[in-house]
Parts: sequence; C-alpha cells; structure tokens
Amino acid sequence: MTHFPEATVADIDQAMQLAAAAFASFRQSSPEERAVFLETIGQQIEALGDALIETAMAESNLPQARLLGERGRTVNQLRSFADMLREGSWVEATIDTALPERTPPRSDIRKMLIPLGPVVVFGAANFPLAFSTAGGDTASALAAGCPVVVKAHPGHPLTSGMVAGAIQKAIEICKLPAGTFQHVYGSGFDIGKALVQHPVTQAVGFTGSLIGGLAIRDYARLRPQPIPVFAEMSSINPVVLLTEKLSQDPQALAKTLAGSITLGAGQFCTNPGLLIVQEQPALPESLEALGQEIAASIPTPMLHAGILHHYQQKLEHTLAQKGVTVLRHAETAGGEKTGQPLVATVLAADFLANPQLKEEVFGPFSLVVRCADAATLAQVLAATGGQLTFTFMGTEADLQQNQTLVDTAQQLGGRIIFNGVPTGVEVCPSMVHGGPFPATSDSHFTSVGLGAAKRWVRPVSFQDSPQFLLPEALQNTNKLKIWRLVNTQWSQADIN
Amino acid sequence: MTHFPEATVADIDQAMQLAAAAFASFRQSSPEERAVFLETIGQQIEALGDALIETAMAESNLPQARLLGERGRTVNQLRSFADMLREGSWVEATIDTALPERTPPRSDIRKMLIPLGPVVVFGAANFPLAFSTAGGDTASALAAGCPVVVKAHPGHPLTSGMVAGAIQKAIEICKLPAGTFQHVYGSGFDIGKALVQHPVTQAVGFTGSLIGGLAIRDYARLRPQPIPVFAEMSSINPVVLLTEKLSQDPQALAKTLAGSITLGAGQFCTNPGLLIVQEQPALPESLEALGQEIAASIPTPMLHAGILHHYQQKLEHTLAQKGVTVLRHAETAGGEKTGQPLVATVLAADFLANPQLKEEVFGPFSLVVRCADAATLAQVLAATGGQLTFTFMGTEADLQQNQTLVDTAQQLGGRIIFNGVPTGVEVCPSMVHGGPFPATSDSHFTSVGLGAAKRWVRPVSFQDSPQFLLPEALQNTNKLKIWRLVNTQWSQADIN
Repeated sequence: MTHFPEATVADIDQAMQLAAAAFASFRQSSPEERAVFLETIGQQIEALGDALIETAMAESNLPQARLLGERGRTVNQLRSFADMLREGSWVEATIDTALPERTPPRSDIRKMLIPLGPVVVFGAANFPLAFSTAGGDTASALAAGCPVVVKAHPGHPLTSGMVAGAIQKAIEICKLPAGTFQHVYGSGFDIGKALVQHPVTQAVGFTGSLIGGLAIRDYARLRPQPIPVFAEMSSINPVVLLTEKLSQDPQALAKTLAGSITLGAGQFCTNPGLLIVQEQPALPESLEALGQEIAASIPTPMLHAGILHHYQQKLEHTLAQKGVTVLRHAETAGGEKTGQPLVATVLAADFLANPQLKEEVFGPFSLVVRCADAATLAQVLAATGGQLTFTFMGTEADLQQNQTLVDTAQQLGGRIIFNGVPTGVEVCPSMVHGGPFPATSDSHFTSVGLGAAKRWVRPVSFQDSPQFLLPEALQNTNKLKIWRLVNTQWSQADIN
Repeated sequence: MTHFPEATVADIDQAMQLAAAAFASFRQSSPEERAVFLETIGQQIEALGDALIETAMAESNLPQARLLGERGRTVNQLRSFADMLREGSWVEATIDTALPERTPPRSDIRKMLIPLGPVVVFGAANFPLAFSTAGGDTASALAAGCPVVVKAHPGHPLTSGMVAGAIQKAIEICKLPAGTFQHVYGSGFDIGKALVQHPVTQAVGFTGSLIGGLAIRDYARLRPQPIPVFAEMSSINPVVLLTEKLSQDPQALAKTLAGSITLGAGQFCTNPGLLIVQEQPALPESLEALGQEIAASIPTPMLHAGILHHYQQKLEHTLAQKGVTVLRHAETAGGEKTGQPLVATVLAADFLANPQLKEEVFGPFSLVVRCADAATLAQVLAATGGQLTFTFMGTEADLQQNQTLVDTAQQLGGRIIFNGVPTGVEVCPSMVHGGPFPATSDSHFTSVGLGAAKRWVRPVSFQDSPQFLLPEALQNTNKLKIWRLVNTQWSQADIN
C-alpha cells in the first residue's frame, strides 16, 4: 500500500499562507492568462495518458469507458471555463456614469465581480476526475481567480495525486505562483476542520454526504469571520411517471429507468431514487417490466468498501420500514465489492407518514411510491422536499393535464427534466446542479456548469475612481470587448 | 400613546399561510404586472402627502428636509425596480439548444432565475422610509415575485403602518392577492423568531445591529430547512486621508469629513467611523481644523431613546480604551434627545492591539488612527476587516503611490470611494451596499441598488421542456425582447 504523507495542522497553515501569497498576484491575472492556465491543465491531464485511467480504475472500481468519458468531461469543463473567461460578460461589469447636473449630483459608479480569496475544495468520491481534484469546483475557482487547496479524497489518493501533479506542471508552464493550487492528504476530521477554519480560507466547495456537508458548514460558521460553504449533499431525484406515457411502451420506459438507476452502480448525485406513479390499469405491467430489467441487471463494484457498506446498511434500513416491499433485485450474484441493484415499492400513505423514506440511499436503488389518485400524487411530490432534479415522463397530453405538478417541482428542484433521465449533467452555461436544502447548502448557486464560478466571487463598486485604479473590465476603453450594462443599456462600446 | 395590535404566534402562522397562497399566483405574474404594482405603491406613498412626513418626523426625530428626500428616494427606488423588470435581462435567461448530432447528444437546456417564496423583512430604524416597510428589501423582493411580510420597526410603528396601508391599497388597485404584502407588529423576540422559523418563509432581509443579525441568522439555521438570511449589520467605513491631499486644503477636507460624521446624527450604516492618517507636517493643522468643525457642529436628536442610550454607552466604553483621547466634541449643549458629536484619536499601536476599537459606534463619532509611517498605515487598513465602504482622500499623485492600499480595501469592502464621503448610497444597477462579514452575512449580494433583487431568486434549469411549460423568458419566441445568452452569444432574437 502506498503511503501518503498526512498533513499536520502546521502543514495546513503553511499551505494557506502560500495560497494567500499566490492570491495577491493571481487575482490580478488577466482573463486570457487564466484561460490559458485552464487549457494547460487540460493538456497536462491528457498527457498523463493511460496511467491516469488505469490508476483511477484501480482506485474507484469504475470501468475504463466511464473513466475515459469522465476525463473528456473534465478537460472539456476546463476549456468551457476558458471560453467563458474570454467571452468575459460573466463578471457582470455594470457602469453608471456621473450625472453632475442632477439634484443631488450622481457620482460615477462602476461594479464588477472580484474573486473572494483562497478556496478549499473537498472533492467527491463518485467522480474521481470530473468532481474531484481538477473537477468543477477547482476549475470554477481557478477561473474566478481564487487559489485552490484540495484535500485529496481518501477514496482515490493516487488518482488525486496524479491530477494534482498535472495542475502543478501547468502552474510551472504558465509561470504562476506555486500556491495557486495545492494538494494535501489527511484522513482525519482535524485536517478538514483546520482547512475550513484557517483565517486565510474564504470559501469552501464540498460534494458528498449530508452529514459531511453540515459538519463543514458548521466549522465555517464557528469561525470569527464566517465564510460561505457550497455543499452539494443529498437528493433522491424524484421521477414522475405520468399515466398515458406509462401505458404507451412500458418495456422501453422500464429499460430507460433501470439503466439510470444502475448506471455507475447508482453512484450519481442525480440517481433516480424515487419513482412516483398513480394506480392505473397499465401499472402492474409497467412494474413487472421494471422489475425484470432490475432482475436482469448485472451488479457492478461500488467505489470502495465504505460506500458499499453504507449502501447495504441504508438499504436494509429502508427495506425494514413499514409498507416497503421489494419489487425485484438483480438475480446475478455479485462479487464482494458489488452493490445489489434493487427496486422496492411503497404505498403513498406509508411514504407520507415516514420521513426516513425521503433520505438518499446512495447506490443502485429506487423506491416506487404508488398513489391512489392524482391528488395523492401531488401530495407525495410536494413532500419530497429540496432536490437537485425532478423528472417527468409524460406525453404532451399528460403534461398538459399536469402543469401544477411541474410547477411544484420548479419550486423544489434545481433542474426539471422532461422525458429523459436525471443522470448525466451537461457542463454548459444553462446548467443548474443545485437546489433547495438538503440538495445543497445554498440554492442561489450551481456546482456544475459555468454558473459555478459565481460562487467564488462577490460584487464590488468603485465610486468616482480614477481610470488607472479601475480593473480593466470597468475602464472607459473596453479593451476586453465584453458586454457591459452601461447606464441601463447593454453595450460593448467604449465610454466617452 | 397609540396601541398597536401585537401579533401572536397564531397570527404569524395565518400571515405566512396567506403569503404562501399569494405566492402561488404572484410568482406567475408578468414583469409588466409587477412593474405596475411597484409604481402604484410609489403613487400611494406619495398620496399619503404631508401626513406621512409629519408622522415620520414625530417618530424618528429626523428633520423634514431629510424625510422629504428619503420619500423621494423610496419612490424612485420602486420605479427603478419597475424599469429593471421591463428591461428584463436581470433574470439571466440562458439557453443552450439541443445538439442531437454530438456524441453524446446534448439536450436542450434553458435556465433562468425564479423567486424563492415568501420573504420576511425586518426594516431599519435609521431610514424609516427608504430602508423600512416599503424600502429596498421589500421593493426588491416584490420585484423578484416574492410575497413579503414586514415586521414593523418598533421605532416608527405609525409611519410603518401608513406605508403598509399604501402598499395594501396598491394591492387592491392591481387586484393582487391580499397576502402579497402583510404587516405585523411585535415587540418581543418570539414574533421575529416565529416569522424566521415558519416553514413557509424562504428568505429573510434584515438591516440593523450585528447582534440582531446574528440572532436571526441562527434562528434560520436551526430550522429543519435552513434558509438564507441577508443581514446588513456593522461597518465603520474607514477613510484613508493621504498625505498630499491632507496638506492641500485642510479646512475644506475637515468640513467635508465633519459633515459626513454628523449627517443625520451619525446614524448612517456608512458613517465614517474611522479616519486613518499618517504622521506628517500638515497633520496637526488638519486635526485642529477637524476638531473645530466638530466643536462647531450642532447636536441633533437621535432616532429614539434606545439608540441614544446605546450611543452614549458605546462612546463611553470606547473613550475608556487605552490610548484613546478626545480631540474635540460639539460645544453647543444638546437637548435630552441629542447625541453629542465627538472625534477622538488613537495611535496605531493601540488600535492594532485592541479589537474593540474596530466595533461600530452608531452615532456622530469618528476615531482618528495616527500611523507613524506608510507600513503602519497599511497594517491598520488591513486590520479593519469586512466593511460596507472604504474611502480614499487623495490627489492623483497620492493614489498613484498608494495603489496597494486600494487593493487591500477592494479585498475587504463592498464599495471603494474616491474623494467623496461614504454617506449617501445611490440606488442604481452598479451600487454595492454589502461586503464581507461583519458588514453583511453574505458578501455575494447587495442590499441597495438593483442587484438587491438577486437575493430573492435562484436559478432553475429546464431540460427538453415543451414550449408551453417554459416561463415566457425562456420560450423560443422572445416576446419580452430581453437580452438572453443563447449558445454562449448575447441575443435579443427569437430561437428558430
């Protein structure tokens, strides 16, 4: 077994001081410099070649094809942030020029988003590349101009170390300060706490469990200067199967759902953990079709022993709840590392009476809630609480008849999907991977997509500033050619 | 004395249920409907005429001219949000159309900001109109599509009631649900707590003390579903007086500073409570000039007995700290309601050694920190912590030589002012009235200016949604003619 040098609290202090020193210059870097840096990180990750994929496979039990796809996603994510920096409007440059003749006279006021400072990132276990060391949190924070300190996820320390090495190479190539990105190992709570509570740290990104996210939020709150924590924590991603759709092609629907439930051994934040259906003639056939798909599914290894153990425990606990009945489970015996795909059913009354059935079961599991009528279905939907996603499977007629359900979902979720599956999160400007508590700790933001960079910045105004003290984005001459809101009009023009 | 019906916890429940019912339709209202509503509120406030000004004068001790100005600001603020709604780009409509030929295919994804839900507002004592019942928090929340429940500030209950009446008339005129705006009285902590902890409440706006803001933040955190609290709390608004500027016209500078320190009896969130200077030949003359202005200032009544008492206590405490010396105080004897303008000095070493000197003294007080050299001045500036504003008084040469000070200020403050005073906050798109803790509880947002509406909304994505289920701002036909980010390009065009 490889030995990883565990950080001490003194190491954390040194790392954060280095991050503070790096921030002094990195925050002044131009959008183009940061874009090139992000692209260089992508190139260096690609340059790690097969060794990275093989290491990640060994540490995460994920298959090669999945990790190749995830590496592509990670690199594209870095490139997308580079494109965003070059387009430039994301800084929300807003200019109101002076009105000296008004009573009272108005000053010249100009606003833009500036970086918060050093960011601590706790990567996710389930995406060792795309949501980890050089994942969305790191990419968006570096794009924003914030140095990053990543605590390596203990589930894939070697993978994390290799990716960290690639980022450090990019730092050298781009001649950035060493403290722009740092990587520390630490398995105990004390290292995470020291990172969150260090006075230099200005924000935290976290992807993981509800318990972990809340612990980090509380560490941050107890600082003399509380800081924001962006934690993506817990979601059961309800899928509503509407009546006409359900009766049209139960086999195809079952295949789609089972594929999403078992994808990556169910280890997606957006795994469809709850299926909501109304009693109708086609339901028994549909459930049977779903059961058959689950029964025929092949158990695959989970990320690591801890996650498997947690899945088994949580599954057992859920199946022991009043009214919960196993529909089917995978019939192939898995190996000792595999989590067994399983779908259970419960009546709406039992679901509504038991808040524990709303808790995430992280793994290849889904619970079907059977509702006697449309009113009960609406009630079940409303009771699910804050979610990353809601999905509606429905024909046009179904959706026409159920607009209030979509409205309810909009009030509870970050993303509403129609006739697709929630697994699979696109990195693009319009993506929201967020939502009300407990899905995240702050529903104003997303942790995937280009909006993720907004977490690491805040607005600052300059009143009657000389031109030479203004950031380039706010100067009269619009050298960056970015879109700006000038006297309430959008413009790319210079100011006279 | 007028009797105000104190709300009970049962009343709060009823009010919040009414707010929830109103939200169901108010959130669906068009931008134009909300714009007309805000304008109608402005008209109804104006229609209250002199009676409103007289009532506010009696309750707040503020002079007529100030309250006339404040009423104008309140009405203009409502109109500015109406303009923002009509311009429409503030919802951040972002569209990425489907790429069916890509591997893997990309779905059609569309994002915009949607309202959070019913908002509870605790208005400020110091602006009975502009930061209270129909002030910035209420105007921005209504603009965002969120029903509002205001707890009347106990310092001006009659004024608050009259303004609430104007809003309720506007609700009738615009045929909106009664729960769109509600007004409750309650002097005990239990009513505030019940409002913040009611399950219907989705966000809280607060302007007031650090202790009050933190208490509300903790009430919100202890809910089963924690909600965001936007508290504007505490700032001493450092003013750096640079060397050349100080020597040029000490009399004029002293007049400007004393005017800002004593404006409105010092009861501004942006009152300049800290002046930072470097020892130099012109300093004694400058301090004498400032002292003379303060000595000649006329004490004016403070808002109410509680605030006066608190000012006196806090002032006494500050003057008792090691090294703090009174420079001058107002020589005219005030009445029993007035707070005495006073400026004191302290050496940098004593300031740096005593965190209590960084605490806000709410009233007509400022502390001059004398620094032996430039390095000490930089240290004092960095030690001031999170602030609403920083101000630099400097010639072009001063500012050229002190760019690193401006840089430090940018990292700690929400607004950087050059050769002006921090009092006076413009309501415009580029304003930031915010900043790192303890200035506010969330530096990502502003409580003044059009950005204030962003506090009450969150992003939601729609994936492969039929057109009829999309909000108007995201439909192919851009009926609202708003600027949207379509496939990473800004556009007002329809989508084919």
